[in-house]
Parts: sequence; structure tokens; C-alpha cells
Amino acid sequence: MTSSTLRSHTCGELNKKDTKKEIKLCGWVNSRRDHGGIIFIDLRDRYGFTQIVLDPKKLAEADKLRREWCIQITGLVRERPKGMENKNIITGEIEVEVKKLNILNESEVPPFEIDDRMEASEELRLKYRYLDLRRPVMQERLLVRHKAAQVVRQYLSSQSFMEIETPMFVKTTPGGARVFKVPSRTHTGKFYSLPESPQMYKQILMVAGCDRYFQLARCLRDEDLRVDRQPEFTQIDIEMSFIDREDIYNIIEGLLKDIFKKVLNVEIKIPFLRLSYQDTMSRYGSDKPDLRFELELKDVSSIMKNSEFGIFKNILEKKGVIYCLNAKGCGKFSRTEIEELIELGKTHHLPGLAWIKVEDKKLESSIVKYLPEKVQKELIKAVNAKENDLLLFAADEFEKAVNALGQVRLHIGKKLNLMNQKEYKFCWVTDFPLFEWNEEVNNWQAKHHIFTMPLEEDMKYLETDPSEVKGKLYDIVLNGVEIGGGSIRIHKKEIQARTLQVTGLNYEEAEKKFDFLLNAFKFSAPPHGGIAIGFDRLCALLCGINDIREVIAFPKNKAAENPMDGSPQDWTPEFLKELNLKLDVVKKN
Amino acid sequence: MTSSTLRSHTCGELNKKDTKKEIKLCGWVNSRRDHGGIIFIDLRDRYGFTQIVLDPKKLAEADKLRREWCIQITGLVRERPKGMENKNIITGEIEVEVKKLNILNESEVPPFEIDDRMEASEELRLKYRYLDLRRPVMQERLLVRHKAAQVVRQYLSSQSFMEIETPMFVKTTPGGARVFKVPSRTHTGKFYSLPESPQMYKQILMVAGCDRYFQLARCLRDEDLRVDRQPEFTQIDIEMSFIDREDIYNIIEGLLKDIFKKVLNVEIKIPFLRLSYQDTMSRYGSDKPDLRFELELKDVSSIMKNSEFGIFKNILEKKGVIYCLNAKGCGKFSRTEIEELIELGKTHHLPGLAWIKVEDKKLESSIVKYLPEKVQKELIKAVNAKENDLLLFAADEFEKAVNALGQVRLHIGKKLNLMNQKEYKFCWVTDFPLFEWNEEVNNWQAKHHIFTMPLEEDMKYLETDPSEVKGKLYDIVLNGVEIGGGSIRIHKKEIQARTLQVTGLNYEEAEKKFDFLLNAFKFSAPPHGGIAIGFDRLCALLCGINDIREVIAFPKNKAAENPMDGSPQDWTPEFLKELNLKLDVVKKN
Repeated sequence: MTSSTLRSHTCGELNKKDTKKEIKLCGWVNSRRDHGGIIFIDLRDRYGFTQIVLDPKKLAEADKLRREWCIQITGLVRERPKGMENKNIITGEIEVEVKKLNILNESEVPPFEIDDRMEASEELRLKYRYLDLRRPVMQERLLVRHKAAQVVRQYLSSQSFMEIETPMFVKTTPGGARVFKVPSRTHTGKFYSLPESPQMYKQILMVAGCDRYFQLARCLRDEDLRVDRQPEFTQIDIEMSFIDREDIYNIIEGLLKDIFKKVLNVEIKIPFLRLSYQDTMSRYGSDKPDLRFELELKDVSSIMKNSEFGIFKNILEKKGVIYCLNAKGCGKFSRTEIEELIELGKTHHLPGLAWIKVEDKKLESSIVKYLPEKVQKELIKAVNAKENDLLLFAADEFEKAVNALGQVRLHIGKKLNLMNQKEYKFCWVTDFPLFEWNEEVNNWQAKHHIFTMPLEEDMKYLETDPSEVKGKLYDIVLNGVEIGGGSIRIHKKEIQARTLQVTGLNYEEAEKKFDFLLNAFKFSAPPHGGIAIGFDRLCALLCGINDIREVIAFPKNKAAENPMDGSPQDWTPEFLKELNLKLDVVKKN
Repeated sequence: MTSSTLRSHTCGELNKKDTKKEIKLCGWVNSRRDHGGIIFIDLRDRYGFTQIVLDPKKLAEADKLRREWCIQITGLVRERPKGMENKNIITGEIEVEVKKLNILNESEVPPFEIDDRMEASEELRLKYRYLDLRRPVMQERLLVRHKAAQVVRQYLSSQSFMEIETPMFVKTTPGGARVFKVPSRTHTGKFYSLPESPQMYKQILMVAGCDRYFQLARCLRDEDLRVDRQPEFTQIDIEMSFIDREDIYNIIEGLLKDIFKKVLNVEIKIPFLRLSYQDTMSRYGSDKPDLRFELELKDVSSIMKNSEFGIFKNILEKKGVIYCLNAKGCGKFSRTEIEELIELGKTHHLPGLAWIKVEDKKLESSIVKYLPEKVQKELIKAVNAKENDLLLFAADEFEKAVNALGQVRLHIGKKLNLMNQKEYKFCWVTDFPLFEWNEEVNNWQAKHHIFTMPLEEDMKYLETDPSEVKGKLYDIVLNGVEIGGGSIRIHKKEIQARTLQVTGLNYEEAEKKFDFLLNAFKFSAPPHGGIAIGFDRLCALLCGINDIREVIAFPKNKAAENPMDGSPQDWTPEFLKELNLKLDVVKKN
């Protein structure tokens, strides 16, 4: 139902069946062509385009019409003359002979053309966002986002989830991202925090027995400026009780399947592949592997321990590893192309990248002379080396070696165009280490958050070797992009006390830091866990683009400003006084 | 689908058909009764209660169980013994014989009973909100809110609306409610505002061609503390293009019908009654009339001009009015009861309330002697006075007189229990005056907002008599509560300039104040209008309650604090420094 007082139809629906109907349309003049004294206009609204035909001899005001003027017309639908049809649009078979023209509003000349071939600068697009959004491609993106949001809600509601709004004004707790702060006017000397995520509140909802919670949650983070960051973003926020990891996997797989089916009409296969952190790092050199192409890394340490290459031997002696990536068919890479790969390794902290080409059924490279024949044979077999392959070697500590080689893998994937843009390859990455050693404070700290449940089988290492403890953590990855992540939380005090102890906190100190959450937990928190999926990111991927600003109606620019409304704006003395605040700045000249 | 790794069923679904099944349940110990060495427990989760039976001789830990402990059990479903069924709950025919008991978590003793007969103070309830929310009635309220939100989204989506998220960080413009401000860390000396509503942004979305927008919008207002106010609230925010008022009425009537049907299974009648502001004030003495009972006011000025009662004559000479409310059947009110009404009038600025009782077919009162017989007869006829009625008179300026009498009407309605709590009486109140005279600034000002379209037929008064200009404004009222309101907006510069001029602003000055909205309008804004419905208020009414805090998961208390998390919290020197701010307070001792 889109008819209204001012229109009988939209610009996106009339077709042959409507011939001879008298109809009313409203919209904007998208283009105007004058032909033999007759004016042809493509009238545009959110729903599409309709060609309307005006005779300026009968409609005095027709001649005044310019691009982007907003008009209402009454007219008769007729078939277009043979050969003049436009098969690309729904309304392409008809046109409307205008009987009455009503100019609803005139327009200044727009600063750029309302056209999907957008050439304006980003700053100009954001300043005139209302014109930028008139473009069909932008309307389509808003619609994809709208549809995705509705599918999320319908799917989760059908699974007994309740959508619950958590507060925008919260208390900040130590750790986590930096939050924005809102001075309280009525409570002088105090402030509210804006939520960086509803983490604590959704866990408290589990203590409250809400069992299955979700929210398309607005989150705000006061992070340092970066090109692809927005101070505000939206996440599909989920928490469930009486579950373990498999329950989260099932729900999210069902959810994503439903979204891709209903928004894109794409069938994705579930269940998704599940890779442990260790596994994905070893095979793809990344904790967000792009599985649209193969090219796996291979641990060749045990083979290379028999090489005579000094660097390799050195690394192995220091408990390092040697990994090989067989870049299939890249044997013809030029010296410059190989140099590029080496440089890429360097930017990812790998001092050198050794390589071997397979030419004329032989290994060719400056290091081959250090590899005894047996080593060569084993190597060829291990990485399935064939004529014209390029073998690349990273030798270093495990994480450094595979990470750099993972970047090289991605680079080659792009260079050889191995990623099918129409393919959607999901996977779960699981079993992340729970702790990492922090050099600065000379102590272990939680890699994600301190409320994450350790794997049952690793609990025994909590006191002896925290590096061995993996958590019930999971990330969901699509085509090499992490779109979300979560964990099963600790719900029992005994376990919480033990994990806190690893980071040097006793439970009583932690209670002061995380007071209201740990207080709530005293009243029998149920086993629970959850996940958050970046909704902006997901929508961008659904639209086949990378920049999340394209799927946000009014995004901020790279400096966290909105060029359209001019926010942030200057403090006035009145506003500051009202809040009992003073600016504490030394003016710079 | 609510089964999971830890449970096969919820506590709200097992019945006779499940007899002999082995099942797993999780939940909290709601109550425990020991009978002949056997323990009966009502196990509770969000979905209901199930009676479980434990034999402590077989289950060693059963004896330890206390209220609110969280447990998992495996057991056999069996029919309850004859006569022991509970017809009030779904699971009332069965019980579960526990074979295995797993204590998931212990609980401290709760500070109040988890029971719908809640007797704890509000402060305690809010501090332990996670326990308060465990009560079935609170879960039910969250569920009503969840369902209502989903119906809103489904209904509006089916009507081609797009849900679009507007920014949380905006620029504040003059007028409107006081906004909360967020200091920018990266832009020293600047701040973002939090939206008091998405008003400007939704209008800009219309300029952007979005045509039909909605959002369940989080709004934040820094108003002075008041018992029934929350600094954050949610509204169903709607804007449409190419429409007039009827289109808004249709959409909202369809929406509310759908909500009441799907959430409460109540059929409400549409279309709703439409009352002009003038009309509702004259008949009900309120712009949010409670139509569940009649008792209409009556203008008796023309009758009373022939009375000899000095006060009445005086008022009429000063262009005041005399209104009468016939309080049917209240002729037996005591002196004290009548005094109560007079006092109520006084608190609503009416100096006196005259009254006449109908007794023994005669009018009885100290003022009757001033009413000639003809006046008495006319009066009796005009207000349909019958034996035992009580006629109440307000004489003053129109607004004062009817407003006070409207309050008396409500008071009597409540006293006589005339409001059926199960009835839902909606109406539209329309045609509000566009301007009001502001004594302080000695000028006209917009009564709602300056972008409201005047009625076509009143445009002619814009320059001559602004008091005569009514706007395309509408409120939606349910059972005497305003649940929303909106307007058709001005989309043309000529009209905007004229309405601005009434308030003494020229268009160029206004452009500085409302820069980005009026800038956007230069590019052919379409005719558009919208509405916002208070979602918290609507949910409260759906739950049959008044206090919106009961339908908000984590509300603030009367002082805008959250006793659970302790927000707002104290500034620390570090936080202030980071934002380049200083507290500007003289410490009080």
C-alpha cells in the first residue's frame, strides 16, 4: 500500500496492464528531453522511474520544469510506441500522458548529479547527504539494511528471543573500549557513560531469567580516528542461557542462512566449517581466513631441520617454525613481483621471505643448494609442488611466520583473482587462547574479556601454564572478514576467581571494578553465552561493498564529523555553565 | 525452538502427552516443600513452572537446594496423582520424577521474594532489578513490549516503510527540549548532542526521497527531574511523503488495530473519532479526553446571560464563558465531597465552582434565587437535568473554565468508577492553534514547532490574526492519555517565511538557526508529515498500568539514577583531563 492522498501509484509499478487508466504520480524530475515540441521526463521516486510526456502547449508550466523539481501529475497510462520500450525497468513498456501538472516544489541546482555514476567527493556527498541518498543505489542499500534488520528480528523472535532495550546511559567499568561521557546537569560532578556495547546488561538479563535476548544495539565508542571507524555503530547483540557453544552456532547459522536467502535470494550452506585458532593460523595464517580460495600454508619445519640453510637452522634451534606457501602457477612471477611479496612480508614484521621456483621439473633458487636431495623430495611431496609453482618460505616464531605468510596468501589470491565475488564462505574460528602475556605490566591479561569460560580440558593449566588455556570463544568469519564474535561466559564464582587470579586480581578487587555484574552473579547466574555481529559490516557485505558508511544513512566522516549538520559543534558559555564545566585548554595560535 | 545443550524442554510446556518421557529441564528453585521425606520443587524459568519431585535418599544434593538456586535436572514425566492437578498452569497435570540433579549455581538469599505480590520498595527493586525481573509479571511485561515492537515493524514494513537508523550524535538546534551533550575528545572545545527526537533527520530523509520512514527511536532529553519522567525513552517515529493528514490517520489506525489484536487479542474499532481541539475542549475540557464515559460539558453562557448572579454576569461581560457539567446522579454528594470538587477547581486555577442539586424535581442551591424561572427551565433542558443530578458551573475565560471543569469531570469519572479498565477508546484531536501569545517576549510563538503547516483555509489570517490560525496538527489519545502526536510539515519556502514572520523571525535569520534543515529544503522537499508515538507509554497501557518504568528493563529512578549500576558516576581527574574539561563548582559543605 503506497497510494496516498497525493498519488494513486508509485513511479515503480505501472505496466501494460494499467494502459488507459487515469493515474496520479508524485516524484522528482530525474531527466528531461525535449523532442518535437514535446517534453519527456523520467519521473523518479524511491520505487523507480516512470516516463511521463508533457505537451507544453497544453500545460503552461511544463516548460519551467528542471532537474530535481518535485511534481505531482495526473495522466493516462499508454503503451510506448513499438521499439521505444525499455526492458530494463518494470515501467519500461508504458508512459504517462500528462493531463494535469502540479509543481510541488522547485529546486536549486544540485551540486552534483543524482546519478549512480557518482563522481562527487565524499565530503560533498556527506554534506548533501539528502541528495546523495536520492540515488537509486543508495536507496537500494537502505532497503537491504531495512530488510536484513527485519529478517533478524523475525528469525530471532521465532526462536523465542525477546528484543530488550538496554540503557543508553550506563556506568562505565574498567577495561574495554574508551566510552563517550555525558555530563549530568542535575547531578553536578557526575556523568553517564554511553554504552560501547550492552555486554554487562545482557549478561544481567540472563541473571534476570530472560533466557534469550537480542537487540539491534546502538553502540558508541570514543576511539581514535581511523578511516573505517564510526563513533556510532549497530550490532546484532545476542545472549542465551542454558546453552553451550553449539547452541550459538546453530542459532547464528540459521539466522545468517535466513538473511542471505531473504535479502539476496542466496542459499548458503550450513553448518559452517569450524576451525580452531591454531588450525586457521597454521593453514591460512589468519584468524579470519578467506576460504574462497585454497592456497594453504604448510608446516615444513620437520623437513627443513635437515636442510643446511643457516637461517632456517637458526630459527629452528630457537624453537621457531618454517612454513611454506605453494603459490600455484606463480613460477613465472618476475623479480619485481617477488620483491613485492618480500616487501609485504616485511610490513608484517617478517625480515625475509625465501622462495623456490619449480622450473623444468627442478627446484630453482639461491637456497636450493642448501637443500639435500632428500629434503627437496620431501618438500615437493609435502607441498605438492608442480611445474611452474612458486614456493614461499617464512621462518620465524609461529605467529609472526604464519601471519606474514597469510598476508602473502591474500595478496596472491587478489592478484590471481581467486576470490569469487558472488561466493559466500563462512566459518567459525574457535578455541582462542584465553590469556596473553602483557610485556608492559609483566603479567597475563585476558585476551578478550575476563568473563570468558575456559575450555573444560584446559582448566588444569590455569595455575600452571596460562598460555595453554583456551577459551570458549568464537568468531564468525565471512570471506576473510570477521563479522562477529562472542563467548560462553563464566557463571560460577570459583572459576571466575581462578581466571582473575591469573591476571593478578583477587576476586574481592575484581568485585570493586565490576561491582554490579559480579553482585548480580551472586544470585545464581545461569550458564550463558552470547555473540555480537557487526550489523553495518554485515549490511555492507550484503551490498557487495566494503565501506560501512555506504550503508549508514548519516555517517560521520573520517574525522568523526557530520558535514551535513556540522556536528560536533562549539561549546557556548551558557551550555558549559549549565553543566558546571569549564574548558581547560591553552589556546593555540 | 527452545531446547538446547542443557535442556530438552522449558518449564512451561510439559503436559500429559509427555508422560513417561525422559526430559531435561533447567531453571530456578521457586519454592520447596518437604513431604514425607520427598522434596517438591516448583522449578521456574521464563516460560513457566514445572513441579519436580526429588528423593533425597537417592539424590544426595537435593537436601541442599534453596530458593533461587539454579539447577539442571533429568527426570521422567508422570501424571500427578488424582486431585493434585493445578488447572491454572499448562504443566499442572504433570510432575517430573528427578533421576539426576545438577546444581548449576547457588544463590545468596534474595533481598525480597521473587513473587508477583511484590512488597519491596521501588529503590530496592531497581537495585536488584535482575531479581525483580525474574517475577513472571515482569517477564510478561517485557514480552508484551517485545511483541508490540515486532508488530510495529511487521506492520509498517508491510506498508512499504523502511526502518532507518538516524544518528545518536547530532547537532542541536534552538528550541525544543534541552538536550544532553557529549564532549568531543578529538575535537577540543566541541560537543555532540544526543537526539531529543529524530525530527530534523526524518524530515531530511523525506527530502532524500525515502518516502516512508520509521524507527523505534531512542530519544534522550535533559529535562528537570519529575516522577514520571525518564531521561531516555523510545518512540515509534514515522514520517511519510506525498500525503496529507488522512494518510497518517489511516496508517496509525491500522497499526494500532494490529498491535491490540496481536498483542492483546482485542479488536479495536477504526476509524477513530476525530475531534477538533475546540470541540474536545468544549465537550471534555481536555485535549486528551477520556471517552470511556460520557459526562460532557455544556456551554450555558447564552442561557446564563439572563441570570442575575453577579459573578456570572461579570464574567460574561468580560467575554468569559459559563460551562456546566451535569454530574449525573451525584445529587447526594455531601458538603465535603462538593468541597473537594471546588478545591480541585482551585488547583486548576478556577477561583470558584458554583453548583446546583436537583432535589424533589427542583433546583436547590444558594444561587438558584438568582436564576429566573425561564433560565432554570432552559438550563434543565440544556443539560438534561434529572432528579438527583449535580450541576457544576465554571465561569471564566474559555480555556480556564473548561480545563478546570474537565478535571472535575475526570475526578467524578474515577469516583463513580465510570472508566471500564478493559475498554480502549481512541480518538484523534486535531486542528490545534498554530501560535500562542508569549507574554514574556510580547510576541507570538509556535505552539508546537515552527515547521507545522497551517490549515489552507486559515492561511489568510497569518498576517492579520495569528490566533485564528490552526495547524495541521494531530494528537492520538487513548483513554485520556496522549500517546502520540505529529503534524503535516511546511515544505514550501513561501509558507515557511510567512509563519516565521508571525513569530518575528525573517527567513534569513531562521536559516541560521535551522541551517541544515532549511538548506535541505532548498532542493525540493516533498509534501510530508509524520507522527511519533510514545512506545513506553503505549506498552504500559497494553499492560494495563500507568508507570512506564514497569515496561523498561533498566529504568532510572525519580532522580535519574540507576541504583543497580550506580550511574551517573563521579568524574575522575583523568576523565576530565582527557576531555579538556574542568569542573566549575564551588564545593558546598
